[in-house]
Amino acid sequence: MKARVHITLKPGVLDPQGKAIAQALERLGFDDVNGVRQGKYIEIDLAETDAVKARETVEAMCGRLLANTVIENYAIELAE
Amino acid sequence: MKARVHITLKPGVLDPQGKAIAQALERLGFDDVNGVRQGKYIEIDLAETDAVKARETVEAMCGRLLANTVIENYAIELAE
Repeated sequence: MKARVHITLKPGVLDPQGKAIAQALERLGFDDVNGVRQGKYIEIDLAETDAVKARETVEAMCGRLLANTVIENYAIELAE
Repeated sequence: MKARVHITLKPGVLDPQGKAIAQALERLGFDDVNGVRQGKYIEIDLAETDAVKARETVEAMCGRLLANTVIENYAIELAE
């Protein structure tokens, strides 16, 4: 079973990396950019085949390692 | 209009960051992980309201700045 995890900064948390991308895009001539936010995207290939257990496992992974839940949100999608 | 861009390493390209995450998860006791791949996730808020033009713009952004198309693939989703 595959899990896709999106980790994004919570609204209101400053995102200097996103701001740098927005400025670089502007310098390249893309002038209709209102804003950019950068997040992380992680694909995890699990041996688990039960969707409920897999989701529990991935939530534990996010809470303990993948996301900093003070400043980041995470979203989990399961596939296969 | 908002664009969501996923940038992932092409299959076959080594992903040391993903490997490091997989090893860290194992050390934490998550022992059913077959593999981890890390990618980037970028949300772009565009002033453009036409979906066709917005997609063209974001494809140009990916080709010129966001993705290294030698080793990375990108996928674009538009919303709103």
